[in-house]
Amino acid sequence: MDKKIAVVALGGNALLRGNEAGTIQQQEKNTYDTCIHLLKLLEEGYNVVITHGNGPQVGNIMLRNQAGYNEYKIPQMPLDICVADSQGGIGYMIERQMKNILVEYKIRKNVVTVITQVVVDINDSAFNEPTKPVGGYYLKEEAELLAKSGGLNFKEDPGRRGWRRVVPSPKPVEILNKKIIRDLVKKGNIVIAAGGGGVPVYRDKNKNLLGVEAVIDKDLASSLLAAEIKADSFFILTDVSKVYINFNKPDQKALDSITVAKAKKYLKRKEFADGSMGPKIKAAIEFVENGGRETVITESTQLSDPNCGTRILPS
Amino acid sequence: MDKKIAVVALGGNALLRGNEAGTIQQQEKNTYDTCIHLLKLLEEGYNVVITHGNGPQVGNIMLRNQAGYNEYKIPQMPLDICVADSQGGIGYMIERQMKNILVEYKIRKNVVTVITQVVVDINDSAFNEPTKPVGGYYLKEEAELLAKSGGLNFKEDPGRRGWRRVVPSPKPVEILNKKIIRDLVKKGNIVIAAGGGGVPVYRDKNKNLLGVEAVIDKDLASSLLAAEIKADSFFILTDVSKVYINFNKPDQKALDSITVAKAKKYLKRKEFADGSMGPKIKAAIEFVENGGRETVITESTQLSDPNCGTRILPS
Repeated sequence: MDKKIAVVALGGNALLRGNEAGTIQQQEKNTYDTCIHLLKLLEEGYNVVITHGNGPQVGNIMLRNQAGYNEYKIPQMPLDICVADSQGGIGYMIERQMKNILVEYKIRKNVVTVITQVVVDINDSAFNEPTKPVGGYYLKEEAELLAKSGGLNFKEDPGRRGWRRVVPSPKPVEILNKKIIRDLVKKGNIVIAAGGGGVPVYRDKNKNLLGVEAVIDKDLASSLLAAEIKADSFFILTDVSKVYINFNKPDQKALDSITVAKAKKYLKRKEFADGSMGPKIKAAIEFVENGGRETVITESTQLSDPNCGTRILPS
Repeated sequence: MDKKIAVVALGGNALLRGNEAGTIQQQEKNTYDTCIHLLKLLEEGYNVVITHGNGPQVGNIMLRNQAGYNEYKIPQMPLDICVADSQGGIGYMIERQMKNILVEYKIRKNVVTVITQVVVDINDSAFNEPTKPVGGYYLKEEAELLAKSGGLNFKEDPGRRGWRRVVPSPKPVEILNKKIIRDLVKKGNIVIAAGGGGVPVYRDKNKNLLGVEAVIDKDLASSLLAAEIKADSFFILTDVSKVYINFNKPDQKALDSITVAKAKKYLKRKEFADGSMGPKIKAAIEFVENGGRETVITESTQLSDPNCGTRILPS
């Protein structure tokens, strides 16, 4: 019988924590500490696809692009190349740590990183209103200068740390090479794919693929990938062990499992914060509505408990 | 019957020419112009693995690392991460151009980029004497400062454009995930792998894989990959249509085909320049000595001629 397939989306702090500078030593340690918990899924009989965020890493790549231009006049790379670069670097780091963990625990398995383009619709309404902050923080004057000279969009960070570039965050429409990813994971390989939500591309009227200045939500891209490769379970790993309603209020309540219908109701009631749990719940719903058995939102450390996290179920 | 397999190593100017600044528009155009010639190999019935250099790109990534640290204090990434980044960005660029060419010529085929670690021996004598220049050019004073503070090695560029960092260039010992690469290409996918000679890693005494400050010659790594996946032919694409002896002398002579024995004799006679054709001939010999049928050294534009280039044959 075929093994079950799990797609596991690693959240931001799986690789790099907010209070860290981002040295390679920190990133490698965090990656190891996260990946070791994935052994539990292998024990439970899953074949595993790992997806991951790239926020701090691609932010640094973009800042280095800017600095390299300022200091050495090196041509800057567009956002699709920056995302692809980050898929290479992060994918390699996860792959090597995971290979080492498998050797440590005497498990024979390959780990492979597949660079993944994700197609968006260039007519997606997201392109009319860039909302997703990327890269570093700028002074108001710098942001205004860059906006004027480079046609870029900037918004003030709500935390007032400065101004940041904002780009469109269109919906993922298709994961390229999904069949290859499915074949690789069905053979028992651990596959690392769709990093950073995928390299954003669109098809022009001649069916040519072109890169585009955008970032795709990593949980939505992972959800689509999970559906397209017919995964059984979709794990969204984040920094809380369960999802809460009435979060941070006296009657706050952790959810063990909810139906898609209930999840939609809570979403409507704005139980989940826009920039954090909201998109995860949406991604969770999409997977189950596209035929998935369950989405689990939890922390990596909880995976040893088979009833961990919050489960979003069909009914 | 199984199709023949060709490993095609794209040379430096396949992606970026020496006189270009390195904008993404230049790189994409060069990549398209090179990859379109690979259709000829598909017509001849080959399944194809593409490998590629990353010199200018990883050089720019390293300079951006330096500039990002200087301007924003972003932690610098080690060389293995820089190479992995470049595999992601370049691999994506080749993959997208190749996919577009296949659509243009109505050929149904997938193209997939596999991040590739290449194992070296940490006791390789190359680690005693760093020789391979990487990254940008520095003033003597800057180089001395970086050498002192960062324990790095620098050498003056023979062309006197300044001082450059030099790193060891150990021999590739093993291509990780070679079985996956072979499976993917045997199924008819065009596979992009071992970019920039591979992400350099070594195994410590506990069999842990660790990154290392080194670069692996891309033709040697491609040669090893070709042998390990049992390719039939190994194409080294460069900027000359044939290999010459007595190069740039009155009696200069283009070679149509030579045996390994002859190639070794010419090597000994120093017919081939150290930094350019020499390593290609060595890589060509290694493939044939490891069981390959032929290595072809030529220009991409020549591939339409079945007798193109210089062939290195077993006997």
